[in-house]
Amino acid sequence: MMDRYNVRTDLALEQRERFVSDQIEIPGVAVEETYDDMCEVRVTTVRIETENGAAVMGKPVGNYITLEAPKMAEADESYHREISGKLMEVLEGCLPEKEDGQSILIIGLGNRNVTPDALGPLVVEHLDITRHLVKEYGKYALDGEADRLVSAVVPGVMGQTGMETVEIVRGIVEETEPDFVIAIDALAARSVRRLNRTIQIADTGIAPGSGVGNHRNAITEETVGVPVIAIGVPTVVDAATIVGDSIEEYVAKCRDEGMRENKEHLIPPYLYGMFVTPKDIDETMERTSYTISEALNALAAGQAHI
Amino acid sequence: MMDRYNVRTDLALEQRERFVSDQIEIPGVAVEETYDDMCEVRVTTVRIETENGAAVMGKPVGNYITLEAPKMAEADESYHREISGKLMEVLEGCLPEKEDGQSILIIGLGNRNVTPDALGPLVVEHLDITRHLVKEYGKYALDGEADRLVSAVVPGVMGQTGMETVEIVRGIVEETEPDFVIAIDALAARSVRRLNRTIQIADTGIAPGSGVGNHRNAITEETVGVPVIAIGVPTVVDAATIVGDSIEEYVAKCRDEGMRENKEHLIPPYLYGMFVTPKDIDETMERTSYTISEALNALAAGQAHI
Amino acid sequence: MMDRYNVRTDLALEQRERFVSDQIEIPGVAVEETYDDMCEVRVTTVRIETENGAAVMGKPVGNYITLEAPKMAEADESYHREISGKLMEVLEGCLPEKEDGQSILIIGLGNRNVTPDALGPLVVEHLDITRHLVKEYGKYALDGEADRLVSAVVPGVMGQTGMETVEIVRGIVEETEPDFVIAIDALAARSVRRLNRTIQIADTGIAPGSGVGNHRNAITEETVGVPVIAIGVPTVVDAATIVGDSIEEYVAKCRDEGMRENKEHLIPPYLYGMFVTPKDIDETMERTSYTISEALNALAAGQAHI
Amino acid sequence: MMDRYNVRTDLALEQRERFVSDQIEIPGVAVEETYDDMCEVRVTTVRIETENGAAVMGKPVGNYITLEAPKMAEADESYHREISGKLMEVLEGCLPEKEDGQSILIIGLGNRNVTPDALGPLVVEHLDITRHLVKEYGKYALDGEADRLVSAVVPGVMGQTGMETVEIVRGIVEETEPDFVIAIDALAARSVRRLNRTIQIADTGIAPGSGVGNHRNAITEETVGVPVIAIGVPTVVDAATIVGDSIEEYVAKCRDEGMRENKEHLIPPYLYGMFVTPKDIDETMERTSYTISEALNALAAGQAHI
Repeated sequence: MMDRYNVRTDLALEQRERFVSDQIEIPGVAVEETYDDMCEVRVTTVRIETENGAAVMGKPVGNYITLEAPKMAEADESYHREISGKLMEVLEGCLPEKEDGQSILIIGLGNRNVTPDALGPLVVEHLDITRHLVKEYGKYALDGEADRLVSAVVPGVMGQTGMETVEIVRGIVEETEPDFVIAIDALAARSVRRLNRTIQIADTGIAPGSGVGNHRNAITEETVGVPVIAIGVPTVVDAATIVGDSIEEYVAKCRDEGMRENKEHLIPPYLYGMFVTPKDIDETMERTSYTISEALNALAAGQAHI
Repeated sequence: MMDRYNVRTDLALEQRERFVSDQIEIPGVAVEETYDDMCEVRVTTVRIETENGAAVMGKPVGNYITLEAPKMAEADESYHREISGKLMEVLEGCLPEKEDGQSILIIGLGNRNVTPDALGPLVVEHLDITRHLVKEYGKYALDGEADRLVSAVVPGVMGQTGMETVEIVRGIVEETEPDFVIAIDALAARSVRRLNRTIQIADTGIAPGSGVGNHRNAITEETVGVPVIAIGVPTVVDAATIVGDSIEEYVAKCRDEGMRENKEHLIPPYLYGMFVTPKDIDETMERTSYTISEALNALAAGQAHI
Repeated sequence: MMDRYNVRTDLALEQRERFVSDQIEIPGVAVEETYDDMCEVRVTTVRIETENGAAVMGKPVGNYITLEAPKMAEADESYHREISGKLMEVLEGCLPEKEDGQSILIIGLGNRNVTPDALGPLVVEHLDITRHLVKEYGKYALDGEADRLVSAVVPGVMGQTGMETVEIVRGIVEETEPDFVIAIDALAARSVRRLNRTIQIADTGIAPGSGVGNHRNAITEETVGVPVIAIGVPTVVDAATIVGDSIEEYVAKCRDEGMRENKEHLIPPYLYGMFVTPKDIDETMERTSYTISEALNALAAGQAHI
Repeated sequence: MMDRYNVRTDLALEQRERFVSDQIEIPGVAVEETYDDMCEVRVTTVRIETENGAAVMGKPVGNYITLEAPKMAEADESYHREISGKLMEVLEGCLPEKEDGQSILIIGLGNRNVTPDALGPLVVEHLDITRHLVKEYGKYALDGEADRLVSAVVPGVMGQTGMETVEIVRGIVEETEPDFVIAIDALAARSVRRLNRTIQIADTGIAPGSGVGNHRNAITEETVGVPVIAIGVPTVVDAATIVGDSIEEYVAKCRDEGMRENKEHLIPPYLYGMFVTPKDIDETMERTSYTISEALNALAAGQAHI
């Protein structure tokens, strides 16, 4: 949801990089990286293991897995199928052990009417919804194929509902008792080059704002009562970030002349609440949302491969 | 929601008319009719007062108020403003007494992607949502104009969510504790001539299916815990109804020849699940939904006139 | 487009069946039928060969090929892929011989805002558009894969544009000079059982209204200057047709009693302009439009198989 | 259309300000400013009178009228009504003298699927379309209220159609022979503070790209054959512009130290093709498009006041 664009970045990966560039080791934060040659995807796992690590990173304790797939912004259908497969694999690793009759509630966060914020609603549109069928006709209604029952909801954003999203989700979880929640959301990245090329999976849920700890509005196991996996794709960069970073680069060039300054003063205040996104965002959203929903459909159907 | 098209009619008015045409008085059912010359609206109140009346009518005990406004299907903006005013008046009469800080949860039922079923979602699009503003900034955020706080949600239909709508609504009511619920829904009428020209307000909530009593899936005070007002507009006629009625008329003509038959046998089974709706349904839906949302906005803002 | 719902049926196949049921041979009309066991598709070709045949059939001279695929209304992805392949094959047979640099203009007819009329607009959404790329970068921009250049337009319906669709199409054809036009449109069938299970391909273009001859508003080679192939899927049945047919069946049962009547008098006039369509029309439209666009994409890319 | 975001600004007003800030008088360019106290609107007319002025301004010879209405981004309905009235007045001044039966073709430019680019399509949705009614039933079909016949089209963008928009428009103009064209488009501003608060009316048509002269893809009297009035609202700022301007401001501060540099080198190339827009762009677009369509409806109906 766009409510968090005042955050510099929603990607743990990018948060970590800020320190890396300063060559600082962060106690309580482990990073692992693998590269899948087959589908040209870099998988980076940032594990925030201690409260201290959480404080430094500005994100809750937990695992943040990032798939970086540069070709994901392109219209190559068979490549998207590979990414779906990879995403399903990563998700399977984050989920509670598979059991018969397990049920997932999928939440499509964000604003359907603002193109780069529509990721969640678009993913939900393509899902195979099965909970009601299995409830009514039994598991065999689905040809014995459903390992997990799927329900889904698009709660809307606060300006449309007048409610905190977590209120809506918590109410639905209490009533329908899913085993866990998967929340899909559009994210803000720091780097334009990551837009629509990166998927972040976090087993911490969605914690709006930069902080750690018990956030009233977070969608987490603590606030909704069951484990929450978050899937996010950065689709925008905060306009203030882009300007701040550009000036920082400029200042770096002038540094020798002894002129370093606090760049915050240089960012015009009217930039807050603005975002940057590419012109072809409609086509990219369509493809990315389809890729994620295919992964979720396969995850639910218990298919080894997509 | 279209889940109820197996019902002959969702309008208490039409249900009542079936008996009227047979000149039968129904014990426990009172009918009152007034005509507003100014805005050419006929207001009919059907009061189902006893369980016996409910059994005969096939609808729960409660009040069903119908506004019939033949010109409502036309594109006359100032006329729609009058209908909004009339609707607000009728709603005010159905609501719990006004109190400071009262809050309404408005539910937009139906399927956004099927034109004649999109009434609820379209109404919610035009609402002035205020609950979050008042919660955050206090009542004066709204220039002291909000008599009632408004929140709203579009829950989707079971095929999209895998959940009964009542599960979603009950969960949200428990979490956000509105004083009452207003549920907007597209209805099925028996008569094509009523389509998009009639608004029914019922203080019984939404009781899917034809029966009375405690329905598991109904959205009523009993199932969600707070009073539920339903606002419905008939936008379709069940295809089986239209064929059945046509054959009945035909049979009536032939009655003298002694050929009365059970018409049910004549309705092809594949007609169930089909509906009849006018070609220009998109334009009508746009106008009607706007008219209803204006009434709701005025109701919330506490305006005497629209 | 829904402008033609006063026509009993848009399917030549159904028009032909009216006579077949009366066991009449129509001079100038040839019918051929094959069955594809593999994909369970019945292909019927109705050839109207003479002006006399055209007059009897109420459709212009030309070829009308119908694919009947009962499973097309189901959500079976691999089956839809087979139908796409079959459709591509049939289309290839209707098109002018393939030449390098051939260009197709695809027209998505109908009203995007009325679910069962949105077939054309939905198909166009999924097309691979290539004309502008080839014009700017040459054929090799497309990896040498494009046998035919594709452009497309969604002209809207007369109530939205104030113009006859043929005026818009003719203007665009004159300016952009495609080699031929493919027009996609939702049709009215006579039989509810054919809805969303049938694809009609006609090399005569689109001739609104029931007549033959030179129609001012038709989209045909005569009116737009290049050959026009029409692809249509019946998504609605005219409400008057459904009632008329039901009464006819009833009357047939009573025929022995000597009571045959002109059924036209029995159809209430307010039924004209109404249509019948299934409740799940949104899902069916989504799938069918995708199937057709895949066939068109393969046709343009010159792929032997999908 | 977003095809023009490589242009620094689409507003003649802002182009003019660049020189004003350098206190340069431009020969061949006249500027006039009035302020309407009633509706708090500043009206600035920039007249480019000579080819020399056009070359300096980077815009064709013609009149560019800008309405600046700071409150236009707010949800005040009666204020929007005043802006509609003002816009109608300004448009009336740009149009050819009123004659009986005059006809307007309104073109909704831009991409319906990218929120800040959807202005044109949204405006067309709310228009009263009358050409087909008057053609069929005569002027009196409209209660004698239509001074001008209205037709409209949403041509789509090149990535969706494979055609230059001017090809589509020229074809339709040739076929339907309107007396003039009004083209609605979302624009790029230089200043974030102008977004959704400014309407530009230009009697030069739409000239994509920064240049002057005979552009192949422009939608102008020269390319389509009838006068073209353009109505535009800035909804985005080019991301490169925003960064460039920010750095320029920074550099200005450092100027004394003798470090002025060419800022172009400082703008990362990946910013081109990106745009900046506010989070609440969906609500703003809805309101603004309604305001413009009301002005156009009144213009066509010949109403003195809205």
